[in-house]
Parts: sequence; structure tokens; C-alpha cells
Amino acid sequence: MNNLHLLDLSQASAAIAEGRVTSVALTENALRRIEALNGTLNCFIRVDAAEALETAHERDRELAAGHSRGPLHGIPLAHKDMFDRAGHVSTGGTKILRDRVAEETSTVLERLDAAGAVDLGGLHMSEFAAGPTGHNVHYGACRNAYDQDRVSGGSSSGSGTAVGARLVYGALGSDTGGSIRLPAAANGLVGLKATYGRVSRHGAVARSWSLDHIGPLARTVRDAALIFQAVAGPDPRDPTTAHQPPFTLPEFRADQDLKGLRVGVPGDEALASVHPEVRAALEESLRVLERLGATIKRTRHPDLKPLYSAAETIIKSEAAAMHRQWLASRPQDYASNVRVRIEAGLAITATQYIDALRLRTHFTRDFLHNTMDGIDVLHLPTIPFPVPRIEDTDVEAATGERVLEVVSGMTQFTRPISLLGLPSLNLPCGFSSDGLPMGFQLIGRPFAEARLFVVGHAYQTATDFHRQAPAVAERTSRATAE
Amino acid sequence: MNNLHLLDLSQASAAIAEGRVTSVALTENALRRIEALNGTLNCFIRVDAAEALETAHERDRELAAGHSRGPLHGIPLAHKDMFDRAGHVSTGGTKILRDRVAEETSTVLERLDAAGAVDLGGLHMSEFAAGPTGHNVHYGACRNAYDQDRVSGGSSSGSGTAVGARLVYGALGSDTGGSIRLPAAANGLVGLKATYGRVSRHGAVARSWSLDHIGPLARTVRDAALIFQAVAGPDPRDPTTAHQPPFTLPEFRADQDLKGLRVGVPGDEALASVHPEVRAALEESLRVLERLGATIKRTRHPDLKPLYSAAETIIKSEAAAMHRQWLASRPQDYASNVRVRIEAGLAITATQYIDALRLRTHFTRDFLHNTMDGIDVLHLPTIPFPVPRIEDTDVEAATGERVLEVVSGMTQFTRPISLLGLPSLNLPCGFSSDGLPMGFQLIGRPFAEARLFVVGHAYQTATDFHRQAPAVAERTSRATAE
Repeated sequence: MNNLHLLDLSQASAAIAEGRVTSVALTENALRRIEALNGTLNCFIRVDAAEALETAHERDRELAAGHSRGPLHGIPLAHKDMFDRAGHVSTGGTKILRDRVAEETSTVLERLDAAGAVDLGGLHMSEFAAGPTGHNVHYGACRNAYDQDRVSGGSSSGSGTAVGARLVYGALGSDTGGSIRLPAAANGLVGLKATYGRVSRHGAVARSWSLDHIGPLARTVRDAALIFQAVAGPDPRDPTTAHQPPFTLPEFRADQDLKGLRVGVPGDEALASVHPEVRAALEESLRVLERLGATIKRTRHPDLKPLYSAAETIIKSEAAAMHRQWLASRPQDYASNVRVRIEAGLAITATQYIDALRLRTHFTRDFLHNTMDGIDVLHLPTIPFPVPRIEDTDVEAATGERVLEVVSGMTQFTRPISLLGLPSLNLPCGFSSDGLPMGFQLIGRPFAEARLFVVGHAYQTATDFHRQAPAVAERTSRATAE
Repeated sequence: MNNLHLLDLSQASAAIAEGRVTSVALTENALRRIEALNGTLNCFIRVDAAEALETAHERDRELAAGHSRGPLHGIPLAHKDMFDRAGHVSTGGTKILRDRVAEETSTVLERLDAAGAVDLGGLHMSEFAAGPTGHNVHYGACRNAYDQDRVSGGSSSGSGTAVGARLVYGALGSDTGGSIRLPAAANGLVGLKATYGRVSRHGAVARSWSLDHIGPLARTVRDAALIFQAVAGPDPRDPTTAHQPPFTLPEFRADQDLKGLRVGVPGDEALASVHPEVRAALEESLRVLERLGATIKRTRHPDLKPLYSAAETIIKSEAAAMHRQWLASRPQDYASNVRVRIEAGLAITATQYIDALRLRTHFTRDFLHNTMDGIDVLHLPTIPFPVPRIEDTDVEAATGERVLEVVSGMTQFTRPISLLGLPSLNLPCGFSSDGLPMGFQLIGRPFAEARLFVVGHAYQTATDFHRQAPAVAERTSRATAE
């Protein structure tokens, strides 16, 4: 039983349902490994060990009495430290929120509690979710599960590393310019930025209200879909969730083919900035999809730069509005690179902001009408280069220009998709020569998460990248066996 | 038959339905009176005589064949010159749009056409709907139906005057800071600014997307309700209309009482700026409501100034975004007072704009929870002083400060309600010592137009202000009889 952490969420779920393992066993194992590895990985900000065990015991009692809350019953998860839980502090990766005890639990955690999941605590994140690498001056940098000298990706840094290191079976993150997809790609995981408005943001620390998306990171598509199913859906406390078609979990067949699926790819010029190793992995992923029956089609790919620019204007404007009072009263409590980036938003005019919002509508219509014309999903890179080193991308130590370089370099393929609000799923598609994971995005039409899940699941039946655990996941199990 | 124009819309509707009058007769009479009076009143920018008669003939043929499109079948209306009609120009009261031929008809005109109404043409308005008086440097000032030296109110100036002068049976206007309610009050009419999102803005020239409301001006509540019914409702081409409960026309009973209705009034301090004559008329209207069975209750009335200020920020920001390119390329084509007011929006920051939008949510919750607590409708002034003279409020000739004075003076009780997006109905409640109409607003909860109509209808069964036509409406009928 010392390889419990190597089960994926769906396998753990079946084991619990069939009485082969208890929630307490899974939880205790997770807590032991977190204790052993968090010093190295720095992916947990807060571990709620006692509460988690109490919950695990309760879930086992319920199951013994014949009551299952569903596929997440008794499953240990942890979440980016931005979701309120009554009586607890969600730091948001900050110093400023460090003393703010929440009065009410966020919708997503309420729903996961109701679904029976066990919450192990708050995961590392970039300060106020501002940062694609996982650096954090207040809590130290989070480290990649596969190589602790490399970035975890951000801003859902701890979510990427904790799931990648098999400390937990899944995690919620948030994504405004790439913050689920980047750490998912960097840690070899499935990460879903769903359609804007699918998942309630009530009780979550915001980055940019018009562009924030909450979603799961997990090892397999089915795992991610089970978490997504539990949290998605209308919430009267977040009006942006009000108008969505219902999400129905698709069937996850062992023999899923992709006949009839039309996968769009951009022209070579759009991929000019992509590193050769990533490019090769992307190409191979397309071959896999073709072997499954899909057709690959060149799309009329839009220039992503104007979309990136509009997203940047919106994020900066909304963050400045959100942070204005703190920027005035306690600017020193921000990491300076975070403060500088947010402050820049104070200078943006209402006209520029409104233009960006209006352009968003235009870009989205154009994307759906042209880029997505004749295709079902669009295939894009996630991180266009191998996962960089922590010391090479330390934006706090860097000058302003270097900061923008790192941010735009990492988010060039993710931030434009956030602007459009379309669903995007990261899938692991290989390892760089340095042994770091690489990923690609599958982008769908509005509310097409079920389709993305089917395609991603098929892809994972034909590949095994998602089963290649990092060394830290192996080492501990051997240590436990001794 | 030379008093056809003195029928109200509902009476004309019944006459048509019962075959006592034809649409052609109503339309010809209207066109004759417009020809005779528009020189004096300056309320039409464009008269589509030939098309209107063609439509009227068609409507009579349909009726003869047994096909009625409903209560508006064959009724001559005209509308603020801001609603696109394919092949026509909607000037928007401007020079800048004077050559723009619309390719597609706006939703509201489409719906009125489908309902059988006859469209006589485009009515005078303040330039780009920016102005509460009805002055316009490009088209001259529109003149009040009751006294041609007085303002019509704006920005739906022609709508107020044309209906007040009984040139047409009703008209659409738009209201962003008061622009339906002010000309309705100034011309002794019923004017409805419905709940935000009730009526599609597709194909209408915008003033401020977040605060624009389209609605009817008419002589009676039933008239206004019939027009409203034809245009309200979801329109896929305007997503802000998507989520509204259906509107059901209430019963308009001859003996409607208001037992059980709780009418809120603000405290005296909130009405300090109201002219004694208007105050007296407001008080009398409350007595009428009490005699009908309503209870008058003092409300916890909010300070309207912060609401006014937030609305101003939103309007300025959005107008600046909308006009930015014209302001740069052809600033001389604006009236300078309009240009100056719109240009001011270029300096507003995104943070200020976002703050105003966030405050709006807060103010609306607070208003519904506190001000509307324990009351069904709120009773407020519309224009807080007797209708001013055209020469005294000519903002083009005035300095900047005087402009703001006039604008804020006239809109102090209307603009804050626009911010909240709550439905507000103007009802005529008397005449000043100068013989100019006065009105009051009834404000309801979201989507409570049917309730406002019932209350307003009851009020009108107990008063006859709405039957007191201006001299221009009498004179012409005597001239015709000669």
C-alpha cells in the first residue's frame, strides 16, 4: 500500500468505492509525503493535517454506512491558496491577505466538500496570481516536481507541483493568462481552463474579474473531468455563471477513436517562436491524433498579438482597480515586480479599457467564424520552450524589461485564449532533453469541455506521458518500503 | 373627423379595430398637422410622408382582409431619430451621422412594423442624445408643445413635443440620464424608462451602452404599455436583453384602486432643491394616490449624489470610447458644448470607470435593500422646477459651468435612477403657473413595469392632466373645421 500516491484520482476513487482502501489511508499517506517533500518542493503554503484527517474519518464512516457522495468521496485534494474557507486564511500568495480570516467558504470548496473530497490545505501560488513562473518573494519559489531547479510554472504553481509530485490526486487552480495551463504543462499534467463563466468565482481571490477562470489540474483527463463536474455550474452568488448549458460527463471509453475529428493547426509562421524540442513534441502529438482517426487541417490562424494586448489592458485595468487602495496604503507589502506590474494599470484610460472589452467581442466572433471555421478543436503550444530555470527567470531580481520578456514569453499562447474565454485543455505530450514535461493546448468552442475531454482521453489512451512520475514520487515510495 | 389627433392611442386603436376610422385617415391627418406645425415646433427632423401613407394603405387592406396585427395596427407613430431603418439615415441629431444610410432596420422598429404601426419619420433629439433640454445647433432647438419659448426637454425632445402636440399617438425615445422622462414631464406625457435590458438597443445610436434604455412616450399609461409590449423582450442581437422575465400586459380597469400599495417618499431634505410649484404638485399627486387607497411611507432615501457621480463617470467613459475617433478626425462637426462634455471622458482612468461600475452594483443592492424596503414604488420628482425657457438654458452659448449647472439641475432626480437600471414611469401631475406641465416619477423594483402601469393607470383615472392638450393641438382642429 505504499504506492497509494501513484494511483490516479480515478483509480483511487474506484479503490475507495470498492472498499480496497480507505480515505484515511490515502490521506495519511499524502500527509506523510507532504511532510517529507514540501521542504524540497515548497508547493504547500498551509497544510490542514488535523482537519483533513477528521474529514477523511468522516468520509470513511459515511461509506461504511452505505452513503457515497460520488466519485470524489474521500479523495485527498488541495487547492491554490486563493479559495476562502470559513475560519481559515487564504493568503493569495501574499503578505497583504495573510491575516484575513474568511467568514464564508467559497462556492468551489463548498461543492468539493459536498462531493466528499478531502481538503489538505492551501497550495503555493504567485502573489495575487500575478506571475507565470511560480516565484514568490513572501513564500519562496515553488519548485518543479520533475526538477527542483526549474520553475513550477504559475500562477497555480503549487497546484502543478503538488499534483505532479503525486502529493495529492488533483487540485484547483485559476487561469487568467495561463495560470492553470502553464503549471500543468510544466508538471506533465492535464489542466483545464474551461469556458469563462463555467465555474463560480464566489469567494475566490480575484486577479481580473473579466478574465479569471477556475479549473482543475490532475494527472488524467478523467480525473480532471471528475473535479470539473463537481465544481462547474450556475451559482447565484456569481452572476457570470448564470447562463451556461449543463455539463454532462462524457463516456471515457478504453477504445476511443477520433474518426471525424477535425484538428486545426496554425501555420508555421505562427509557431516561429516555438523551441525545436517543443515543436517536435507538438508534431508528434498531431501524429498520435491522426493515428486515432483525426484529420489535421491548417487554420486561418489569427495574429495573437492584438488578443494578447487586449487581455493585458483588461488585466492591468481590473487589477489596478482592485489593488488601488492597497497600492496607496501599503505598497511596500507587495513584491516590487508585482507592484510595478499592477501599478501600470493606474495609467490606463477608461477609453483604452473599453476599447479592449469591445475588441474582445470582435476578436471572439472573428476567431469562432474564421479560425475555428471547419475545425472542431484548435491545437496550440502551451509553453513554447522547455521549462526554464528558477534563477534565469527570477522577475523580482530582474529589470522591468526582463520581467515583461519572461511574462510574455511564457504566456504568448495562453493569454490570447483567456481573452476569448474559450475552453482550453492542456495535455502532456513529452519530455524535453532536460527531462522536463511539455504540453499542448486543445481549444474548443464555447462550453465544449466534454468534447475536449473525449479528445484528450483518447490521446491519453495512446500515450503514456501522464504515467511517467517524477523522481520525487518514486523515491519516497521506496523510502517508505524500507 | 377633424379631432382625430385628439384621440389617444388606445382610442385610435379601438376606432381602427371597429372600422370607425382608417389608418390612412389617421395618417393623412397627422401629416397635415405636421406640415402645419413643424415649422413652429421643430420636432421632426425627417418626415417620411409617402412611405407612411403607403404603409397606412397596406394596413387598411390587411384589416379589410380580416388580418389585424394587434392593438398598434395602423397607428401613426414617430420615433427619436436614432433608430436605424434600412435605406434611411438616422441622424442621431448630428452632423456626423447625416450621411450614414442604415443597411439594417433596428429591432425596435422591426417589432413596431410587425405590430402594424405606421412610422412617420425621425424626431428631433439632442445631438448624440447628449443634452436634457432639446437644444441642437445643427437642427435648431425643439420647442415645447405647450409653449414654444420653453424647452421640450431632452434628449428625446421631438418625442416629447410631437406626442404632446398630438402630432402622433406615441413615440419611442431613449433614456440614459433622463432623456425619456424629462421630455415626457415637460410635455405632460407618460414616459417609461423600463428596467435596463428590457428593450433591445440593436440598431440604435448609443449614448452609453451600460446605461441606455429605450422606451415609449405617450399620452396615457395604457398607450405607453401597448407600445412597450410591442418592443420589449429578448433579442439575440442585443445580449443585454437576454435574461428578463416575460412582460404581461396588466388589466387596465376603469375602477382601479390602489389598496395595499405602499408608496415611498424621500424625506424633506432630499427634496430641498425642488421648486415650490413642483413640490405642491408632487404633494397633490400623493394625495390622489392616498385617495385611491395607497399608503405613503417615508423611505430611507439614499443620497443621490454619489449615484449621479457614478452614472456621470460611466456615461463619460463610454461616450469617449464611442466618439474617440470622431473627436480626433472631425471635432469641429460637434456642437462645442457636446464635444467638450464628451472629450472630458478621455481623461477618466480605467480604475475610475471600473470603480463606478462596481459602485453601481453596491448602490443597486443598497437601494433595493434599504430605500425600497417595505415599499412597492418610490415617488420622486422628475424635473425639479418649472420648464425653463429656451434662451435661459442654451448650453451652446453658455460657459462650461453653466452647462453643468443646467444638466445637473434637470437630471438630478433622473440620472441616479438610470444608474440603478430600475424601471421608472413619468406621470403628468399638473401645470405650473406658466402653464407648463409638471411630472413625477414612480420607480419600481427590477422588471416591475406591469405594476408601475397599474399604479399609473389608476392615477390617471383619478386625474385629467393627460387630457389637457396644448393650444397647438386645439388651434389646428379649429382651423381645419373652417
